[in-house]
Amino acid sequence: MQGHEFYNNKNVLITGGLGFLGSNLAIRLVELGASVTLYDGLIADLGANLFNIEPIKDKVQVVTANIGDRTVMDGHVGNQDIIFNVGMHSCHLDSMKDPVFDIETNVTPQVNFLESLRYNNPEARVIYIGTRAQYGRVDNPPITETSPLNPMDIYSVSKQAVEWYHMLYAKICGLCPTSLRLGNTYGPRHQMRHAKYGVQNYLIRLALDNQQIEVFGDGNQKRELIYVDDIVECLLLLGEKAECVGEVYAIGAQESVTFLELVEEIIKACGSGSYTHVPWPKDREIIEVGDVVTDYSKLTAHIGWAPSTSLSDGLRMTAEYYRKYREHYW
Amino acid sequence: MQGHEFYNNKNVLITGGLGFLGSNLAIRLVELGASVTLYDGLIADLGANLFNIEPIKDKVQVVTANIGDRTVMDGHVGNQDIIFNVGMHSCHLDSMKDPVFDIETNVTPQVNFLESLRYNNPEARVIYIGTRAQYGRVDNPPITETSPLNPMDIYSVSKQAVEWYHMLYAKICGLCPTSLRLGNTYGPRHQMRHAKYGVQNYLIRLALDNQQIEVFGDGNQKRELIYVDDIVECLLLLGEKAECVGEVYAIGAQESVTFLELVEEIIKACGSGSYTHVPWPKDREIIEVGDVVTDYSKLTAHIGWAPSTSLSDGLRMTAEYYRKYREHYW
Repeated sequence: MQGHEFYNNKNVLITGGLGFLGSNLAIRLVELGASVTLYDGLIADLGANLFNIEPIKDKVQVVTANIGDRTVMDGHVGNQDIIFNVGMHSCHLDSMKDPVFDIETNVTPQVNFLESLRYNNPEARVIYIGTRAQYGRVDNPPITETSPLNPMDIYSVSKQAVEWYHMLYAKICGLCPTSLRLGNTYGPRHQMRHAKYGVQNYLIRLALDNQQIEVFGDGNQKRELIYVDDIVECLLLLGEKAECVGEVYAIGAQESVTFLELVEEIIKACGSGSYTHVPWPKDREIIEVGDVVTDYSKLTAHIGWAPSTSLSDGLRMTAEYYRKYREHYW
Repeated sequence: MQGHEFYNNKNVLITGGLGFLGSNLAIRLVELGASVTLYDGLIADLGANLFNIEPIKDKVQVVTANIGDRTVMDGHVGNQDIIFNVGMHSCHLDSMKDPVFDIETNVTPQVNFLESLRYNNPEARVIYIGTRAQYGRVDNPPITETSPLNPMDIYSVSKQAVEWYHMLYAKICGLCPTSLRLGNTYGPRHQMRHAKYGVQNYLIRLALDNQQIEVFGDGNQKRELIYVDDIVECLLLLGEKAECVGEVYAIGAQESVTFLELVEEIIKACGSGSYTHVPWPKDREIIEVGDVVTDYSKLTAHIGWAPSTSLSDGLRMTAEYYRKYREHYW
């Protein structure tokens, strides 16, 4: 971990601030001396959980409103130095079942949020969270920032569109955006009530509950799992480096594992659980992206970032957290 | 022109049916014996003009409602064999001034339209109109279907997103979409009140009015102009060929001309007008895409299409039309 003195006394706003990524980022920012505002729409079934900010609840401002609600957002973006735009739904499957929900959650509010910045803080530094799924199935791994865009579900199309909208607001009003296309992330403070956002986290619940995990097909598709502290470190670096303005980054993990190996690691870290192979459900199969291997060398070159948490360490810390605070997540 | 017997007695719906492209297509479809429904939102300043359908006004059904209005759309899509989804605003500049208008006109209604198809006519044949601007500035011309996507304004991002949404509805409900990424088109029945949609058409008005045309910079950027009858022919072919389902096509012109040469051709065809060079306005410069040269060989290979109208013939027919019906367009 570097010093990040940059954030001392900075005003920072986090959309989706009560969720998984937002709350972990907020805790670190408070440690660094930032003045943190958490903005969250509290949309049902998404990741918002007040317990996530238990360690910092008296040290942050919490605003509960939709990201696209200009009457509220306009009052909070004006004096921010850096905005981490993390708020979203992230369910690939839901987006295909209900595309209108996807547009109403991940697209329209984001454009209204950008309009709020335009009229209240046009030159703000904004870190947007994209998704590796903007690339879809990649024929020639590893994925890099220049791999062809090929989103395979509504969610991923919307994330790509909103990433582009962010970049165009640089032209429209001088906004200073950066996009981090996030892969599978795990760790403390993820919602654990359903498998829809980041199945890897839900698998940890199943293992802790000594349940049987279903592995679709042979489970040999390659996956990358990034521990949330590594993501937080990356976001902090992106926010403080002016050179990252206008840039898009792909992020990857230290290790590449098959889905089956991941399940075995989870069962090991939790000390309970089992697995069985089942056929691919149709709705999963049509949005399955195959092997995921990412070349994150642009991040290393630009900001010196590399993941530092091994999968076994990360899973161990994650299992510990949920064992301890289970009642707040189950 | 080919026979297009395919369309005899077919039910065809055209969104944006009172606009430039929609009305020209409708006139041809009525000639071919199709039962045509024109759906149009009559959004102010867009291209809808009842005079456009004067020759067929008693032979088509006209529905005036927003494309995204499910209560109306649901009643009209059920029995359609082919839907030409032409309805949109197409102003690059407006989209940057008012991105919310862009989303509310070109994105949200389109998703609701797709939902209407999903529940009323899930396996419909749908031809979507994309834009060449989804490629933005292309470093290595000519443009082909596999050129990298690089939209440079909000309008073009939205058009790309909605093209992807169409393609994903094939997975969601079996929809049979095709996208034609349209370049600069000109001809009769375009709105002539402002320069926002297809400046080439407005230049014809200026020349007919013996006005001075402003050429930004040296005017040496290459342009392709496609006569509307050639586009209509292409759309008809795409609609009748099942092999085109799931495909995206780039379309180009017979000739490549510089903007300056185009202006000279327009002045010649109109027999009046003049031009002067002026510096690039800032708002135009940031969305200017440079030279446009498209390789349309995929269209030729798949459906046998090639443009058949020379620029001088097309401009002559266009000038004649507006001279004759000026009162309905000025």
